[in-house]
Amino acid sequence: MCPDLLPAPGGEELTRGFLQEVVDILLGYISKSSQRSSKVLDFHHPHQLKEGLECFSLDLPDQPETLEQILVDCRDTLKYGVRTGHPRFLNQLSSGLDVVGVAGEWLTSTANTNMFTYEVSPVFVLMEECLLKKMQSILGWSDDVGDGIFCPGGTISNLYSILVARYHFYPEVKTRGMGVLPQLALFTSEQSHYSVKKSAAVLGMGSENVFMVKCDERWVSSKYTKGFLVINGMHNNGNVCSPVASLYVSVFASLGVELFNFKYLFSRACSVTWNPHKMMGVPLQCSAILVKKRGLLQECNDFGAEYLFQTDKNYDVSYDTGDKSIQCGRHVDVFKLWLMWKAKGSEGFGSQVNKCLENAEYLYDQLQRRTDFELVLKNKPEHSNVCFWYIPPSLRGQPPGPDRDARLHQVAPRIKGRMMEKGSVMIGYQPLGDKVNFFRCVFSNPATQQEDIDFLLDEITRLGDI
Amino acid sequence: MCPDLLPAPGGEELTRGFLQEVVDILLGYISKSSQRSSKVLDFHHPHQLKEGLECFSLDLPDQPETLEQILVDCRDTLKYGVRTGHPRFLNQLSSGLDVVGVAGEWLTSTANTNMFTYEVSPVFVLMEECLLKKMQSILGWSDDVGDGIFCPGGTISNLYSILVARYHFYPEVKTRGMGVLPQLALFTSEQSHYSVKKSAAVLGMGSENVFMVKCDERWVSSKYTKGFLVINGMHNNGNVCSPVASLYVSVFASLGVELFNFKYLFSRACSVTWNPHKMMGVPLQCSAILVKKRGLLQECNDFGAEYLFQTDKNYDVSYDTGDKSIQCGRHVDVFKLWLMWKAKGSEGFGSQVNKCLENAEYLYDQLQRRTDFELVLKNKPEHSNVCFWYIPPSLRGQPPGPDRDARLHQVAPRIKGRMMEKGSVMIGYQPLGDKVNFFRCVFSNPATQQEDIDFLLDEITRLGDI
Repeated sequence: MCPDLLPAPGGEELTRGFLQEVVDILLGYISKSSQRSSKVLDFHHPHQLKEGLECFSLDLPDQPETLEQILVDCRDTLKYGVRTGHPRFLNQLSSGLDVVGVAGEWLTSTANTNMFTYEVSPVFVLMEECLLKKMQSILGWSDDVGDGIFCPGGTISNLYSILVARYHFYPEVKTRGMGVLPQLALFTSEQSHYSVKKSAAVLGMGSENVFMVKCDERWVSSKYTKGFLVINGMHNNGNVCSPVASLYVSVFASLGVELFNFKYLFSRACSVTWNPHKMMGVPLQCSAILVKKRGLLQECNDFGAEYLFQTDKNYDVSYDTGDKSIQCGRHVDVFKLWLMWKAKGSEGFGSQVNKCLENAEYLYDQLQRRTDFELVLKNKPEHSNVCFWYIPPSLRGQPPGPDRDARLHQVAPRIKGRMMEKGSVMIGYQPLGDKVNFFRCVFSNPATQQEDIDFLLDEITRLGDI
Repeated sequence: MCPDLLPAPGGEELTRGFLQEVVDILLGYISKSSQRSSKVLDFHHPHQLKEGLECFSLDLPDQPETLEQILVDCRDTLKYGVRTGHPRFLNQLSSGLDVVGVAGEWLTSTANTNMFTYEVSPVFVLMEECLLKKMQSILGWSDDVGDGIFCPGGTISNLYSILVARYHFYPEVKTRGMGVLPQLALFTSEQSHYSVKKSAAVLGMGSENVFMVKCDERWVSSKYTKGFLVINGMHNNGNVCSPVASLYVSVFASLGVELFNFKYLFSRACSVTWNPHKMMGVPLQCSAILVKKRGLLQECNDFGAEYLFQTDKNYDVSYDTGDKSIQCGRHVDVFKLWLMWKAKGSEGFGSQVNKCLENAEYLYDQLQRRTDFELVLKNKPEHSNVCFWYIPPSLRGQPPGPDRDARLHQVAPRIKGRMMEKGSVMIGYQPLGDKVNFFRCVFSNPATQQEDIDFLLDEITRLGDI
């Protein structure tokens, strides 16, 4: 096989034939992923996969393989992977397999272009503008303010929110660095995502200067507030919270549900992270940072590279939006979202999100009824997260205390391990503060039905009672 | 149309039919993109596309559209876009349309998973390890050192290189921030990519603390050196270059050609940015940062989120590599590269890169022969970049000087504008320092042949002589 056979002049029939065979494999996979009778995964340990299984070897050759082998490689890659679109994939995100979203991503990769300029991405740049405006209007921001950009994931979006907040208060940081600034502090909920500390470290602010603020037990504040507070003087002089001169409020509404169902929370936000690749079911990656102050993103990040952002082009160069970004090359993440919005409408997204919330409520109801499970939070879920312990027979009736906790801590990991080896269902677990390992079910998979929730609980019981 | 028709139980036939129609559109597009008789683009100004063309509207509806309209939307998106796979797309990157790469990306989006843990990406995590090892061996790094991670683009990879360099010298920066560090300075070539300054701004180091070092006219040093230098005391005390206690050398080998053809340059590098989405022709995004000191990436970036990186899992959790990253959710960028490597072998990539270099040499030869063009650099190209001016009849014979420069500066943008409106070919232009606007041809498109280079020069002449 000639190494540059694909693509090649005269190779059109071969190209079509090859791609059609790949598509047939993918269509088969999609169909199988939706069947409850198929496994969620076919688990192998790292060393098993590395040693190679049947015809599947990870090794990279010097000489080309045949096209037949490439097709085998595609099949095997899917075979040993995890079916995130399976109705019983309830692990954390991403999940689901929206067919229009998949079609959007297939088109995106075929168009293979870059978001940095209008020149090479005319349609996608305009789609980004259109989506950002729509998202801003859902936040309740007026038409003549607001800006934003799509980013490679929610953590990078959160990094942007802190970056623009810092620039908003101290624009000199861009050229002169943190050295000329007073000590900065960042306030966030004690339950906030680890990306806040991670971003503080990347940005040179230091994770110790992130202050974790207590929030109520339902963790509501954790989801909706992240403060960026500039104080004068060192934070360790005991003067942390005073004077609260300015507060830049960023909201990390990662799942997306808040945006359809809790709009009232966004009025005070200076920036909002919104991840359509979570509860809206858009294929990974699709995340946006929305910034209320227009112009801030551009001023904070632009360096006007002359080889890309020439000002003497033949079109309106305000559409060369790439210099707002901290990236140069930027993947097109907007088309799949745009196409899904066309196919569902805002109402379709709304009902998809509601279905996730209904599933959370159903799980909550089931857990309340059963004696072999215990809820981590007694309140009815306001969101799509439901956290619970499975109490195996040996622990039932045992009084609370360190002894019971130590044993309960091992239950979820053990069941999860068995689940993966059996391949029947997937759900995450975690400890949190003084709470030992519990299962955390995040509903974002549109394929999940009540029967899958029943199955989950029964399966946990089966695997936990062994 | 029911908003959750896709995907839906019992909707399998509809799903297959819809996706097959999308694929037919894509196959038609791929076939047309390879034909020289088709246009590279069908140019429209932003306001024209925004107003809507025929049935194509960017607006996002509240109610769902029909599947027929979704297919029309797909067709129109491609119609008004730029065919980056066309043999005459010579604009800067990404270009080409490698069919195996496209197949890889189609599979990736169908698998729709996340690189953060082995749990949800067993095969892709191992592919990343395998690719990084192969790339390290190409750099000449021994098997028992070296680490790396795939990132969303070369600029983010460069940001990583500075981030880990800073951590290498001052690990306390992670927790305590830049405030407790001495003033840092970053040295780079005066011709280096703007991502160095951009990253310095993001990281809180400040773009003024990036010092641009002169390099020889062939810009060689610009491609291969980026120093990160820690000095004690303020940089403005006149003591910038002394004492050069430690130098952390990062190499930005973005195009990828260096890695096959100039291996000897990498022996001193502490980190290397390698973008397979450039000259290796892998669909965007595909970039890696390789770090020689194993463990540095993990130490620099980890925060051990307990909901993701539990240590009590049922498998070897050293394969949960996501905490090395500054992202949380991370797109799978490795599969398409892995599959292309299988299909071409290292030798296939080598010859693809050589073909780009041959094209550069051919263009250089043609430019030398013609009196209506002038080379920006007289030397034979060592790389795939060739920079040149077109000298229209009215400027031929005019003596050098500010007057000629001012007029020559307008030539390339004017021709580029006409080119885009005609849709016949695309090439970039830029000024650089005291050099007025020139065309910059970067060969990375494997579809480009010598006849396309001839066409380019003839077309410039045709459009420039009007």
